[in-house]
Amino acid sequence: MAFETIEQLAKPAESKMVLLVMDGLGGLPLRPGDLTELEKANTPNLDRLAKEGICGLHQPIAAGITPGSGPAHLALFGYDPVRYTVGRGVLAALGIGFALQDGDVAARGNFCTVDNNGIVIDRRAGRIPTEKNRELCQKLLQIALPGVELFIEPVKDYRFLLVLRGQNLSGELADTDPQVTGLKPLPPVAASARSEQTAFLVERFIEKAGEILADESPANMVLMRGFSQKPDWPLFPVTFGLKAAAIAAYPMYRGVSRLVGMDILETGSTLEDKLQTLKNHWAGHDFFFFHVKETDSAGEDGDFNRKVSVIEQVDRIIPEIMSLKPDVIAVTGDHSTPALLKSHSWHPVPVLLHSYYCRSDKVAEFGERSCVNGALGPRLRTTELIPLMMANANRLVKFGA
Amino acid sequence: MAFETIEQLAKPAESKMVLLVMDGLGGLPLRPGDLTELEKANTPNLDRLAKEGICGLHQPIAAGITPGSGPAHLALFGYDPVRYTVGRGVLAALGIGFALQDGDVAARGNFCTVDNNGIVIDRRAGRIPTEKNRELCQKLLQIALPGVELFIEPVKDYRFLLVLRGQNLSGELADTDPQVTGLKPLPPVAASARSEQTAFLVERFIEKAGEILADESPANMVLMRGFSQKPDWPLFPVTFGLKAAAIAAYPMYRGVSRLVGMDILETGSTLEDKLQTLKNHWAGHDFFFFHVKETDSAGEDGDFNRKVSVIEQVDRIIPEIMSLKPDVIAVTGDHSTPALLKSHSWHPVPVLLHSYYCRSDKVAEFGERSCVNGALGPRLRTTELIPLMMANANRLVKFGA
Repeated sequence: MAFETIEQLAKPAESKMVLLVMDGLGGLPLRPGDLTELEKANTPNLDRLAKEGICGLHQPIAAGITPGSGPAHLALFGYDPVRYTVGRGVLAALGIGFALQDGDVAARGNFCTVDNNGIVIDRRAGRIPTEKNRELCQKLLQIALPGVELFIEPVKDYRFLLVLRGQNLSGELADTDPQVTGLKPLPPVAASARSEQTAFLVERFIEKAGEILADESPANMVLMRGFSQKPDWPLFPVTFGLKAAAIAAYPMYRGVSRLVGMDILETGSTLEDKLQTLKNHWAGHDFFFFHVKETDSAGEDGDFNRKVSVIEQVDRIIPEIMSLKPDVIAVTGDHSTPALLKSHSWHPVPVLLHSYYCRSDKVAEFGERSCVNGALGPRLRTTELIPLMMANANRLVKFGA
Repeated sequence: MAFETIEQLAKPAESKMVLLVMDGLGGLPLRPGDLTELEKANTPNLDRLAKEGICGLHQPIAAGITPGSGPAHLALFGYDPVRYTVGRGVLAALGIGFALQDGDVAARGNFCTVDNNGIVIDRRAGRIPTEKNRELCQKLLQIALPGVELFIEPVKDYRFLLVLRGQNLSGELADTDPQVTGLKPLPPVAASARSEQTAFLVERFIEKAGEILADESPANMVLMRGFSQKPDWPLFPVTFGLKAAAIAAYPMYRGVSRLVGMDILETGSTLEDKLQTLKNHWAGHDFFFFHVKETDSAGEDGDFNRKVSVIEQVDRIIPEIMSLKPDVIAVTGDHSTPALLKSHSWHPVPVLLHSYYCRSDKVAEFGERSCVNGALGPRLRTTELIPLMMANANRLVKFGA
């Protein structure tokens, strides 16, 4: 349903909603026929919600397509991720709370290691610590480029943010990260005539960064990607008529939440911290996006048991969340990250939706295979979740007379 | 997902894929409540693949729409069959390996029988044998038309191919086949101004063909349909980054495979022939389209038991296919052809997809009703199958960051 239509149908209500996202929740058995991480996990509280609620699996982008974190979250927030695309640079800026202005060009930088011939031998410079990163960003700030203001902000580990502010800049530039080692960094090729001046400036920046970092080890060069500018999108709180808040610790998710206009709550990074944040802000918002990163991290690390354990930890805070009496709670992931694959995957993501009015199905436990036969179906479009939550929260009027 | 996007996400891999298509696989019970052809068939090998894999039913065009063979196969190959339409003439040309050039207009001809008043009394001229067809085509070659080169090629039984080659031709002409007996052949009405000259030429061709065939019996006239020109489409091997081969004996399927750019392997027409062809070419290709026509023919003939038997024959070669260790195999049909209806039908088509990474569902046998509860859902869009196979073959990178 188009955002314009949803906005017309949205109505105010007192109801409260929680969207609990275990990042990369969907999994795979380590061997065909065995249990997935979620199936293996002992989750009495999630199983109860599944039994009382309706279940299914959602597909963030399209059949067979593995989503990145940005598109997957945009889909969860109701944004067609093929239509609403955003560069990594913009997400990185939003993630650290950098106040991006219209016209700014943002890019994500990696400190990397090159050999004497300028060949990239480590795209992440041995994952240098954030403190070192901070020190290097400070050094890079001596770079001056004609006609633009430069911002260089450390993010985490080896990642930093570059922002160019000036007239007539454009984010239509190719990445300089060759994506593999054994190659030289690529030039920031302009994808259009109007980005040629920006490409020239970025090339100067990279050249000077190389000179400044020459004697550093291991971080002696930079790779840039995701050149982009702040998009002009409909905002989540406006479209859905919700006072919406994000409880997330990791920059990417704070960034994408800020991009769609949610309030970003200050929070610690543990489950307990986030639960406390939820409680503290319960009265002030209608909609809470509650993000758990550790499921995805465990999956990416190929640590099946740790992913099981994180899911079980989340299960244990469910009673406390339910004690706040949300009118609607949805529990899901943004995509699958099976430990078997050590990466995001295309597999649909288990989802449960619980409300007094949900019309329960026969699914009695929360797992990939059980959810196949739930009322939400085995391939719910991810963008349909928020409208379903809205309906269950009595926040949509009928369509037509 | 748009082809442009898929092409950007496709990555090379060593994996091998088999798409085994039993034409018209989907069926109906002879009486409500009984078993379908596929359910009746004893298929231990397909059942094992279904149990280990994921199942569902796919819908080639749209709800309630019965597909023709061309659109159904295009959908299987990932092409939106509503957007990518192709005339029967072009398919017929490709099916017999006729080297269609850009600008040629191709049409399929039927030899038919008309009475003394020119009324069609048999649209297929008693299904004359191919040898007779060849002889008649030879006679028609004496026809000369101003400014165009004519090609008249026998196909099979009563069917032939007409190709006009020249300047400024257009395929936008109405069929002359009235589709029912008791009517005269229709004129090849131009659907646009730019096809008027072609309509004029085709009218002359039909007139002269009638004169030449006047003393023949039963084939004393021609009916033309599917005037069309070679389309300019993205190619399957390019879009999906696959070295793709078709193993099909019947012209239509060889034609549609050639149209999307697959290599057409020489093969005999029996299952054993095709299996041998698969083995012989296993090393040289990534993707094999393996086509079985006989399920559809049995369905069209209303022969329930023969269709059951063909399915069982296919089941018996499954172990030999699996011994080649395909990374991904999908088994399905292009549409349903229930013996009860003696024709194609709109019913969704059972599909199973088997790979190490497929995340098995609870379906334990391959049949119409069991597949309803599979993880692919009861109405998978047919065009989604290839992207799913690609994902399972580890041939797609993630979408977005």
